[in-house]
Amino acid sequence: MTKPLRLGIAGLGTVGVGVIKIIQTKLPLLEARTGRKILISAISAKSKTKDRGLDLSSYQWEGDPISLATRGDIDVFIELIGGHEGVAKEAVGIAISKGKDVVTANKALLAHHGHELALKAEKNGTALRFEAAVAGGIPVIKSLTEGLTGNTINKVMGVMNGTCNYILTRMESGGLSYEEVFSEADKLGYLEADPNLDIGGIDAAHKLSILSSLAFGTEINFAEVELDGIDKITIDDIKQAADMGFRIKLLGVSQITDSGLEQRMSPCLVPSDSPLGQLEGGTNMIVIEGDQAGQIMLCGAGAGERPTASAVVSDVVDLARGIRLPTFGQPAKILQKVSSSKSQTPAPYYLRLLIHDEPGALAKITKILSLYNVSIDRMRQYGHEDENAPVLIVTHEIKHENLMRAIKELPNTEVLVSQPVAIRIETV
Amino acid sequence: MTKPLRLGIAGLGTVGVGVIKIIQTKLPLLEARTGRKILISAISAKSKTKDRGLDLSSYQWEGDPISLATRGDIDVFIELIGGHEGVAKEAVGIAISKGKDVVTANKALLAHHGHELALKAEKNGTALRFEAAVAGGIPVIKSLTEGLTGNTINKVMGVMNGTCNYILTRMESGGLSYEEVFSEADKLGYLEADPNLDIGGIDAAHKLSILSSLAFGTEINFAEVELDGIDKITIDDIKQAADMGFRIKLLGVSQITDSGLEQRMSPCLVPSDSPLGQLEGGTNMIVIEGDQAGQIMLCGAGAGERPTASAVVSDVVDLARGIRLPTFGQPAKILQKVSSSKSQTPAPYYLRLLIHDEPGALAKITKILSLYNVSIDRMRQYGHEDENAPVLIVTHEIKHENLMRAIKELPNTEVLVSQPVAIRIETV
Repeated sequence: MTKPLRLGIAGLGTVGVGVIKIIQTKLPLLEARTGRKILISAISAKSKTKDRGLDLSSYQWEGDPISLATRGDIDVFIELIGGHEGVAKEAVGIAISKGKDVVTANKALLAHHGHELALKAEKNGTALRFEAAVAGGIPVIKSLTEGLTGNTINKVMGVMNGTCNYILTRMESGGLSYEEVFSEADKLGYLEADPNLDIGGIDAAHKLSILSSLAFGTEINFAEVELDGIDKITIDDIKQAADMGFRIKLLGVSQITDSGLEQRMSPCLVPSDSPLGQLEGGTNMIVIEGDQAGQIMLCGAGAGERPTASAVVSDVVDLARGIRLPTFGQPAKILQKVSSSKSQTPAPYYLRLLIHDEPGALAKITKILSLYNVSIDRMRQYGHEDENAPVLIVTHEIKHENLMRAIKELPNTEVLVSQPVAIRIETV
Repeated sequence: MTKPLRLGIAGLGTVGVGVIKIIQTKLPLLEARTGRKILISAISAKSKTKDRGLDLSSYQWEGDPISLATRGDIDVFIELIGGHEGVAKEAVGIAISKGKDVVTANKALLAHHGHELALKAEKNGTALRFEAAVAGGIPVIKSLTEGLTGNTINKVMGVMNGTCNYILTRMESGGLSYEEVFSEADKLGYLEADPNLDIGGIDAAHKLSILSSLAFGTEINFAEVELDGIDKITIDDIKQAADMGFRIKLLGVSQITDSGLEQRMSPCLVPSDSPLGQLEGGTNMIVIEGDQAGQIMLCGAGAGERPTASAVVSDVVDLARGIRLPTFGQPAKILQKVSSSKSQTPAPYYLRLLIHDEPGALAKITKILSLYNVSIDRMRQYGHEDENAPVLIVTHEIKHENLMRAIKELPNTEVLVSQPVAIRIETV
């Protein structure tokens, strides 16, 4: 273990710069922790001349990440390019086939091609690591694959997209509309080039699908995550949920039920005074339920240069220490293919209705709900806006399919002013 | 890696039984995660005949843990006896000298002899693991030694004794005195044979000294933890702190300052609506501040059969996977010996005074405080009890030594009815 560990870093955006800064400034600490030298052999990025505020002159430069991935003088290929197709995928595949270990922060790549890459890594005897792909600097991958190995995991849930959480908490604190906060976030540079990755819940669903695989020993299955973004959430939803003691979060929930693997990424109501309800801004929280350890909550910054670089470096340190585990915690070929199940687990729901203010209107609504076993826990009717009366309902635990049938039937009452809003309630 | 990993388990109390249950019921899962068989070769406990609700007939029995530690058919010696002297210490030492890896849940042993054992383990090329020693099933040891290796850690703090947290939250919820809750906890079997280990803060201080070593790369130094238990906390303190927006927790704080290593385990006030303030019952929370990852919070059950066994098994799985790291994350011989520093870091404090209700009394108090630079943030004077007036003060950030000087001077005002209570305030 006395040979230095030689890195090749592809992609010098925020995270790449953060990784290089840690390696440049903390060599003695890293050497104390690993017992060997860690050095950067070569780097690659789109622009060689861009000023990144770093001295890169001692590293070999490669214009093309593919060439970097095949260099003889690197042991670990660090992929910080991003995107689930194109050069990132190709370079990772080539690095593996050349026997390099790979560290990546690329959740999209793993969500789409994780299984195929894991098979390839195991065939080639290399390690594929991705602590930075989920929840920034929070060591959640390590907790699932190493810290809780004596557990059968029942459920993984959490808030794993900081941008959505920022938008929702900012709407609430500022009393602003979704559109206003969206344009504010855009100006602040918080949004991805394709904002739908964040606000559509896709980025968070990538992460959830990775956590599911680690938690349940199943093949990664991003395609079947039930997905709903935050763009339909109104300031009224936020205000009126708050009135009932809830906050709205883009929440991922993954669990194994008798019918298969249930993976949902959608806006949910959580109690305002719960740990999830109190999350502000870009903070992420992952909740893991094991049959032995019970409920473990991990919380911290989910993104940003330093937290994400911290996670990348922890993977590098593990490799320098000679730790080499199967990609998803078990050999890829024994991961189970399980069927997906759509929201089978009953839950309470929050319903927001706007109804005509006329005698018997509410009775018509409650009759339909009762017909489909949508039983009411709490209901609140507000002072009238013109001719219309807003009604908020919190149900007992009900089946999603029953709720959907009731909602389909409700327009037949002819008392609805607009389409009902239904949001699942999750408690920790 | 095809040979089975053979375990010897010494101590069949709650945790030992929990470990055996996991190994008996989860062999396929453990094998999938490690790629090899894990089997129990031999066990040892005080009583061979006691019914533990388990079939132990396939394991060899040793009456003496020392004999167990030296058996040729075990690779890992699991020490679940407890106590920092006597047979636990002796057996661990012998196991190491015989080249066995050791897994222990014994925080007292590590706090007192961790450095010497780490040196011995490294000399003998064996691993000494102790995830179960701190915060039950929460993977906090792994997070510090592996998950945050790219970080310089600035501070570690947290609630790490469930019994104390139970007593304090139960006093508050039931409006009960310390003595009442203590005897209730005793009847429920929550207390150790020597209750002072818990309520005196010693058990929690053991854990804090372990975390300090991992976080800062320093030699373990339990002897110099500033230690204060919860037995002097009154229901009045709890009620009046609540009135000012705080709850009282037995909180450990460890940080490196310019003057050295500051380690405190003492009752502190934390904001009621903060994550630490909301902890109930036996839940533990550890907060780690890294220069890269920022603030990471880990929360979960801090004790009990299953959570603690979960941590022991995660260590066993790591060993089965061939992961072998230095005991405290760095070679023991390079851990730094740093001097201890007594509460140098300024903090706000909460002061509770009972003063004679006479003209100018409060002015005499505030004059002394001002003289010693104890500046007041908020003050509240209550309706009078007989001739006496309770006064609550929240200070700005002040130095502990200034506060102590002021408190020493206060009796000279001749307006104090009783000794002032001063409790540090920590915010996360």
